[in-house]
Amino acid sequence: MKPANLFYAQSGGVTAVINATAAAVIQTARNRPDAVGKVLAGRHGILGALGEDLIDASAFATDDLAAIARLPGGVFGSCRFDLDAPERNPGQYDRLFEVFAAHDIGYFLYNGGNGSMDTVVKLSTAARQRGYRLVCIGVPKTVDNDIEGTDCCPGFGSAAKYVATSMLEAGLDLDAMASRVGRVFVMEVMGRNAGWLAAATALAATDEDQPPHIILMPEVPFDEAVFLERVKATVERLGYCAVTVSEGIRRSDGSLVMEQSHDRKGRVQLGGAGQCIARLVHAAFGYKHHWAIPDYLQRAAGHTVSATDHAHACAVGRAAVEYAIDGRDGVMPAIRRVADDPYGWVVEPAALADVANRERLVPADFIRADGLHVTDAARRYLQPLIEGELRPPFVNGLPHYQRFKPGRVPRKLPPYTF
Amino acid sequence: MKPANLFYAQSGGVTAVINATAAAVIQTARNRPDAVGKVLAGRHGILGALGEDLIDASAFATDDLAAIARLPGGVFGSCRFDLDAPERNPGQYDRLFEVFAAHDIGYFLYNGGNGSMDTVVKLSTAARQRGYRLVCIGVPKTVDNDIEGTDCCPGFGSAAKYVATSMLEAGLDLDAMASRVGRVFVMEVMGRNAGWLAAATALAATDEDQPPHIILMPEVPFDEAVFLERVKATVERLGYCAVTVSEGIRRSDGSLVMEQSHDRKGRVQLGGAGQCIARLVHAAFGYKHHWAIPDYLQRAAGHTVSATDHAHACAVGRAAVEYAIDGRDGVMPAIRRVADDPYGWVVEPAALADVANRERLVPADFIRADGLHVTDAARRYLQPLIEGELRPPFVNGLPHYQRFKPGRVPRKLPPYTF
Repeated sequence: MKPANLFYAQSGGVTAVINATAAAVIQTARNRPDAVGKVLAGRHGILGALGEDLIDASAFATDDLAAIARLPGGVFGSCRFDLDAPERNPGQYDRLFEVFAAHDIGYFLYNGGNGSMDTVVKLSTAARQRGYRLVCIGVPKTVDNDIEGTDCCPGFGSAAKYVATSMLEAGLDLDAMASRVGRVFVMEVMGRNAGWLAAATALAATDEDQPPHIILMPEVPFDEAVFLERVKATVERLGYCAVTVSEGIRRSDGSLVMEQSHDRKGRVQLGGAGQCIARLVHAAFGYKHHWAIPDYLQRAAGHTVSATDHAHACAVGRAAVEYAIDGRDGVMPAIRRVADDPYGWVVEPAALADVANRERLVPADFIRADGLHVTDAARRYLQPLIEGELRPPFVNGLPHYQRFKPGRVPRKLPPYTF
Repeated sequence: MKPANLFYAQSGGVTAVINATAAAVIQTARNRPDAVGKVLAGRHGILGALGEDLIDASAFATDDLAAIARLPGGVFGSCRFDLDAPERNPGQYDRLFEVFAAHDIGYFLYNGGNGSMDTVVKLSTAARQRGYRLVCIGVPKTVDNDIEGTDCCPGFGSAAKYVATSMLEAGLDLDAMASRVGRVFVMEVMGRNAGWLAAATALAATDEDQPPHIILMPEVPFDEAVFLERVKATVERLGYCAVTVSEGIRRSDGSLVMEQSHDRKGRVQLGGAGQCIARLVHAAFGYKHHWAIPDYLQRAAGHTVSATDHAHACAVGRAAVEYAIDGRDGVMPAIRRVADDPYGWVVEPAALADVANRERLVPADFIRADGLHVTDAARRYLQPLIEGELRPPFVNGLPHYQRFKPGRVPRKLPPYTF
């Protein structure tokens, strides 16, 4: 019997190492022609399955896979699209299984965060109910580091390395520019509900006079008076104050601190917390104020990838294929830490039912008692995740990122409107 | 006769390579004990001279100088402070010359941008009028690249490399996240009046489908209708559009596009052009919108220094000391380009009278006819400036930036209040 094909796709924000996972999936599947047919990658996540927009990823040369493994972004694209509940929209699932059947797909690997793991669970259940033989595996990925059941998430370590590097360097600039009227610098990092990236900037400091002096995380309700008092004390001591703020910090009444805008569906678009915090300080004390918002830069920084993060990303890709071949439906390869220093880790399966739609926040013992910084326990956790340098080749002064425009698998089904 | 001491200080925003210039000044002076006594560095620019806040930079070990040459920020600090006109505030000049006399200073080297060159000219004139023997030399530096009389400015190449890298990487992310509703990404870079850094992001693209698709420079009055039309056409073609915007873009009536805030002196604080442009697009078309503001990160990025820029920074430091020793009062070492490819350059003196307080904007032949991008001539100019990689050592996953807290020279004069 010809082995079944493997569907692979990605959901949610991409990272500097998501392509490393994709390349590991493709290479591992290729090493097992006894068990896996082709790897068919969905363009833009589950939309690629719905739209029968598939790429024959098995066609990549081995050299191409090595190059892909070093690219930021995502060569197969990603999406922000959640499947409907099966009872609400059974036609959506009908379509998915039509596509899977038409392309002999027997393995479903979905790379993403908490919401994506829910998609995997839904599909696994639907397959069972329909009697369709499909092994469904989640693959963890998010710069937010907020997936339950794993010690850390591929993508986070590199983003953490980037934001810690940025705070370190901006801090040196700030120190040189300290002025008699006081100066505050605010860097806003990603994190709607979880302060992991904000916490990671603490690695830039080796003593408490070094930036960042204050870290505002969504886990701690923002207390303006306490915050301003700390800023003032810092500026009076050093001449300046550096603050890291998660985009999603909230006041104790639950309201977001940032300036709000809404998308067309009325969902809040974040992105102004840094500006708000900087202006708040300026209004209170008249200090010169600057704010930085790395935005996409922090999750796309292929030029400063963490080798540890890259190794994680490859390992979960390999393990996901192995679990699929072993028929371990409904699991996700998770990273388990064995030791902090020297850092040791293994990959183990975690049941998606325990993971999907949950959110792993920064725990209380990682947050300093005053809520304005992290503890040594947080530093011990974070430190190994940013270690090791993996740099792309440079050509003409810039990282050399090869472009891939893979061809599509011919469609076998009528178009689908959604 | 004991040779005179050399005063060195820095003004305006620091850069990723200003310390390289400082180290070259110190090392070059040390190599000429026949002509130069000590190098006394002013803390925080001219404020260090007024306040008699001096560092004996000759005390650094050679190894320390090598480490300093690789640090972003500025170990001697900088300032945003302009001297008053001599006729308005002669006391300020009296104080400066008292400090110079007390510390046997016969050379004055001031590292900065257009405004700093004016300070050098003022001091040179004042010294002549007072019969004080002082050789005054300007040293060019600014990420804005807007100093007249030099082909480029140390600091610019590294910032240009950083913003081009950032646009390249964010562009890959954007490409992966292209959605059916359209997506716009705006990166705001430094440049109040000159669009050099914005122009440099063009190096990220090798064809016109690659980000940045639009570059908004202060040299071109912002035309909302033309801009929006181009955004729409780009999104309809590619699914997304990446825009670089200089912080200081203005409408044809001269008004700034960004959201304004003011410092206590009523001066406009820029920093919101990126957000404004992103929101403008969102309001017009409902596209998803993101904006990044690297702010200090772009000028402090020691982890991605341009080797060419670093070489320039060292060369102007060396030349400044040589000019000083040769008694060439009122000049600045300028970089003259000999060839684009392979890149060739020399350092030559430029008369500060032709440089001070002028501003070198992006010339018309570097700006595409539609005003929304750059020309090939601009690319040929920019390309060599970002070339070559000079990376700091990494320790524990982060660039290793040694901290220097140099001791101060004992004061000889009563305190000065300013």
